[in-house]
Amino acid sequence: MFSLGGFSRGGEYENKTWDVLIIGAGPAGFTAAIYAARFGLETIIISKDLGGNMALTDTIENYPGFLRISGAELTNRMHEQVKNLGVDVIFDEVERIDPTECAYYEGPCKFAVKTRNGKEYRARTIIIAVGAAPRKLHVPGEEKLTGRGVSYCATCDGPLFKGKKVIVVGGGNTALQEALYLKEIGVDVTLVHRRDKFRADKILQDRFRASGIPTILNTVVTEIIGEEKVEAVKLKNRVTGEERVMEIDGVFIFIGYEPKTDFVRHLGITDEYGYIPVDMGMRTKVKGIFAAGDITNVFKQIAVAVGQGAIAANSAKELLDEWNSKLVE
Amino acid sequence: MFSLGGFSRGGEYENKTWDVLIIGAGPAGFTAAIYAARFGLETIIISKDLGGNMALTDTIENYPGFLRISGAELTNRMHEQVKNLGVDVIFDEVERIDPTECAYYEGPCKFAVKTRNGKEYRARTIIIAVGAAPRKLHVPGEEKLTGRGVSYCATCDGPLFKGKKVIVVGGGNTALQEALYLKEIGVDVTLVHRRDKFRADKILQDRFRASGIPTILNTVVTEIIGEEKVEAVKLKNRVTGEERVMEIDGVFIFIGYEPKTDFVRHLGITDEYGYIPVDMGMRTKVKGIFAAGDITNVFKQIAVAVGQGAIAANSAKELLDEWNSKLVE
Repeated sequence: MFSLGGFSRGGEYENKTWDVLIIGAGPAGFTAAIYAARFGLETIIISKDLGGNMALTDTIENYPGFLRISGAELTNRMHEQVKNLGVDVIFDEVERIDPTECAYYEGPCKFAVKTRNGKEYRARTIIIAVGAAPRKLHVPGEEKLTGRGVSYCATCDGPLFKGKKVIVVGGGNTALQEALYLKEIGVDVTLVHRRDKFRADKILQDRFRASGIPTILNTVVTEIIGEEKVEAVKLKNRVTGEERVMEIDGVFIFIGYEPKTDFVRHLGITDEYGYIPVDMGMRTKVKGIFAAGDITNVFKQIAVAVGQGAIAANSAKELLDEWNSKLVE
Repeated sequence: MFSLGGFSRGGEYENKTWDVLIIGAGPAGFTAAIYAARFGLETIIISKDLGGNMALTDTIENYPGFLRISGAELTNRMHEQVKNLGVDVIFDEVERIDPTECAYYEGPCKFAVKTRNGKEYRARTIIIAVGAAPRKLHVPGEEKLTGRGVSYCATCDGPLFKGKKVIVVGGGNTALQEALYLKEIGVDVTLVHRRDKFRADKILQDRFRASGIPTILNTVVTEIIGEEKVEAVKLKNRVTGEERVMEIDGVFIFIGYEPKTDFVRHLGITDEYGYIPVDMGMRTKVKGIFAAGDITNVFKQIAVAVGQGAIAANSAKELLDEWNSKLVE
């Protein structure tokens, strides 16, 4: 084992049992870390990136305290705060969590956390804050223009497109709801859906029809065109095969989320979509495992994620206090 | 009615039905306003002050995004954000809320909100975010030295007292829990309690005794002494009548909270302590009335309050959407 900058790497992280091991370094994970560290708990974060979806957001105007801030800057500020409290972020991906010294019953427990890099960490409590990535179209131009006209969040980016022309892609509840919202705040919106009918709830479909929002059915986006920002989309009719280019300023994509929770599926804490349901204390079905942020399938917002992160850390502390008092007796 | 700065006062606010009327301008109320305004909803805040408990906090180190910020500055920043979205804060106190066009059944509803200044506002939904003030000792020096050594929040201010000498006042769960926490993070803490036994849970009392924290029973604080910051407290034994002065750096007071919810008691949405219980969507027992922040009796933190404020606004929007769609049919 060699030391780097006075800190022994690798073994240092594995040869101890962490009080709180947080998976994910987005707003929920960062906040959980701030609270856990201030509670005096031995805390570590494992994450494949910094900031998650937050880091990809161009402009954030709805996080209280900042009139306007970039996702990258808010990520840096939260990371700074966590580092300042002595919490490290290990860049790695968790592949499996297993309870080691107890199963699903009462009493002091411990978890083994195995990662893609072949490491194994031990922790008494786990907070899962891995987020949920918006599903992508996987078409040319999409990645390059994300944050430059391509958006996965109307609440975040909608107000930037007032008086401008955008398309909303999708046919579920979120797509229709967000298209209605964009119209309400003065965005010139057209809906593009790949099928001939919507999956959304009837009540929402009725409202959508009443709104008069132009709709292009049976049609997919095959390319997003633009240099610095979105300028147009290429559309293809799936029935006739006809292709056309439509000039627009923005593309809002609402075709679902991809919660990635394979690493805990065997524990039975996920729902049919892969989300992790929690109670008001952010507790999952397994004692000692908590979840916070988008992965709990609530209102997917930074403000909500930080609130849940704080609550999760507090619940972890309460459980550790309870376990500690039993050990003393 | 006269106009002030191009804006007609008084009647302007009363002669319309607001989509969302928020009571309280702390972190929960401000965040609800940010979200409601961005949803395109007609939004107003009524509050007796700006910032609530947040404004009184000297240094905040656990709100994600700021390594360190004063409560006053964070209040100003959130207020700025709300003003920027066109939401006004009316300085007044709500004395009663009454449902007007429906009682407690399904369907479009409206509320009348009466204030201390004799005004009556109308709103379709209400978000109660009035906070809960920590109960005070009401002794000389307490008010002057709040934020200068007198604190009502160990999670917020504890780390500033590492290596320093403080007393914790109280004998309930919070007092014992916070005394243990302060000791854990390296504060030299003594507990002062006015009775000869604790109200706290047995398990907590056991842990407290095991901790060896010095305890002064049957004793009350009669004065907090200091010019710029806390220097000492005057203590009085309630049995012997003996008085003494104890030199310390901080006083943490945990003698309960005072949720002030008389204005909705007749609606049956409060619990026995005056708090307002909510579900995961921040809905109270009365459709159209939501609550967020400390008044819901969760983990009393700014991060939690902003999360709840965002959720409350989203739930209000969902309900208004539902009502609107019924009006269309």
